[in-house]
Amino acid sequence: MSATTVNIARGLEDVIFTESSLCYIDGDQGKLYYSGYKIQDLAEYSTFEEVSYLLLHGKLPTRAELKAFSAALVAERALPRSLIRNIKAYPKTAHPMSALRTAISELGMLDPHEDEISPEGLYQKSLSLIAKFPTVVAAIKRSREGLSILAPRKGLSHAANFLYMSTGKVPSKEETKLMDVALILQAEHGFNASTFTAIAAYSTQADLYSSIVAAISALKGPRHGGANEAVMKMLAEIGSPERVSSWLAELQAKKGRVMGMGHRVYKAYDPRAGVLNKYAAEVAAKHGHSKEYAILKEVERQAGAIYNPKGIYPNVDFYSGVVYSDLGYGLEFFTPIFAVARISGWTAHILEYTKVDNRLLRPDSLYTGKLDVPYVPITKR
Amino acid sequence: MSATTVNIARGLEDVIFTESSLCYIDGDQGKLYYSGYKIQDLAEYSTFEEVSYLLLHGKLPTRAELKAFSAALVAERALPRSLIRNIKAYPKTAHPMSALRTAISELGMLDPHEDEISPEGLYQKSLSLIAKFPTVVAAIKRSREGLSILAPRKGLSHAANFLYMSTGKVPSKEETKLMDVALILQAEHGFNASTFTAIAAYSTQADLYSSIVAAISALKGPRHGGANEAVMKMLAEIGSPERVSSWLAELQAKKGRVMGMGHRVYKAYDPRAGVLNKYAAEVAAKHGHSKEYAILKEVERQAGAIYNPKGIYPNVDFYSGVVYSDLGYGLEFFTPIFAVARISGWTAHILEYTKVDNRLLRPDSLYTGKLDVPYVPITKR
Repeated sequence: MSATTVNIARGLEDVIFTESSLCYIDGDQGKLYYSGYKIQDLAEYSTFEEVSYLLLHGKLPTRAELKAFSAALVAERALPRSLIRNIKAYPKTAHPMSALRTAISELGMLDPHEDEISPEGLYQKSLSLIAKFPTVVAAIKRSREGLSILAPRKGLSHAANFLYMSTGKVPSKEETKLMDVALILQAEHGFNASTFTAIAAYSTQADLYSSIVAAISALKGPRHGGANEAVMKMLAEIGSPERVSSWLAELQAKKGRVMGMGHRVYKAYDPRAGVLNKYAAEVAAKHGHSKEYAILKEVERQAGAIYNPKGIYPNVDFYSGVVYSDLGYGLEFFTPIFAVARISGWTAHILEYTKVDNRLLRPDSLYTGKLDVPYVPITKR
Repeated sequence: MSATTVNIARGLEDVIFTESSLCYIDGDQGKLYYSGYKIQDLAEYSTFEEVSYLLLHGKLPTRAELKAFSAALVAERALPRSLIRNIKAYPKTAHPMSALRTAISELGMLDPHEDEISPEGLYQKSLSLIAKFPTVVAAIKRSREGLSILAPRKGLSHAANFLYMSTGKVPSKEETKLMDVALILQAEHGFNASTFTAIAAYSTQADLYSSIVAAISALKGPRHGGANEAVMKMLAEIGSPERVSSWLAELQAKKGRVMGMGHRVYKAYDPRAGVLNKYAAEVAAKHGHSKEYAILKEVERQAGAIYNPKGIYPNVDFYSGVVYSDLGYGLEFFTPIFAVARISGWTAHILEYTKVDNRLLRPDSLYTGKLDVPYVPITKR
């Protein structure tokens, strides 16, 4: 059996391994749905709380249901004191994703019912994690900046409270909406690598915290969570809209890639980029980030002329960096914000997996080595 | 497109997703090879250090190479002081696998070069993790037992030092050989769920620590790492060799499973169980665990008569619990010992994946939900 005669599903591309009703992506037409709802509608009319409810329950909440759900999240926001103490002691040089990975692992260790896997227990722990992720990320951010860690503030929405705990300022309505949109757009995206890693861990009946720690570990990889950082570095490298043309010529000469353009799934305009583009334009105009935005627009125009015909369009990461930067986050917090959004998708997939499927993930590989090699004693090697 | 017309590769069973030359399993004939060498030869003639070298390098070391490799492991055994301090503060009620998951995540956070992914950097970090896993697990064990954490002792082999740090006693030659065999037998097993989870995380170019934390998270699941705990609970439930017959009748009546028998891959006698059976018999005779061993043998005989014709045989977990228990470890440390062994396989697969393949893992799912559901404002729901 040689590699040429065996079909190897590299990257598991196009391998269907389970059913799901959480997310539908039409990559050719650039469409994205959460539980049947268009992403554009959810971004425009909904909130992160409502979208989290939708993902966990498969339907939009009534007013009473949303009120109860939001209250449950508010009640779960605070962290155990010992965890706050530990976060303060994390090395300031550590990558915030390593800090998040460690903090969530600790949170599991501190939960006396960590291993509970009843549907009700998993649901309660999912709520708790969705509620606590912003608190953990904001604590890591404040601690790195040498600032005091802020307790969650009641009366603020999930997005507003995250911004408040991160920056120390109660955000404007517009800033809150922008964070809400950013979180909604990144809450779910099918079996991307981090969600899939969570399911791989969970398929052994590992507890919820372990599965989420595995997801964080995968999201940390620059190929997954790190693309918007790369976009910001590209913007800094280009420097001004006038430089785009010469920069692009150089890039083509060395066969480089435009960061934030192209996506394994989307061969059309990433619908999330479309939504974020709209909000980024407003924010850029009001908050003085117009230069970065202007460079982006110019890259989109010039690079688009070359790459769009090849099915390479801006993806969500193309615009998200400018948005996060404008909201007060440094580069190294782009991926943690992604995690604050994606925790809803991760937990929803875990809750769903037990219901629709339940199989341990164990794929196969093509063996390319020798067999029956005689063991030669070390004295004779 | 409905579920009945689409081929769903549940559990990714039989899906070949990459090449590997690390492990060959012939499940029908009950054969297992590491890098081409029969597991029986490695268990009998080799050491854990040599097997780790084999997995990382694809060949057995010369005497000089083994000496240098072993010295490098010895040099990497000690933990950072702050990590020891934190391990002491972990809640005593925490599952040791949660403690291991947290400790390795912290170890990554403390490494200023955590994100280094050059082949040389990955190799050095692999060595460091192989060396440190026993130190971390022993520290967690001692701390839970209210005993002082012991520093690694030079002059002791990997297996002997692990036993020494765990129990405070320098082990006999026979105990050391037993631990060596146990570690060798569990060092590698293809793309089992924890190794696969490590690769899923690593495929995003996540750092080595993150990938290993993901693997630990998957190994924690009772379906993966927890089977030998279940065997010990079964032995306690049976109570004596005379009770086996009535216990088995009850089990069959309620259509239960015999713990430690049957394996997704092996439809014959698990070769690892064969090796461990031999050592377990010796140990049981010498260390007074003959009752547990006697029950096991009786279960194997009586249950074997029923299940062997169905391709259900004892697997490695059938005997490993009695061995670990005899070596001084409680039930809750069986899976951490597994991790101390499997870290070699995990790191070897990660090093190999970059060389033979490099693709982000992103499978697909069958969408079973609705589409284009109209968004009804909350006031009208």
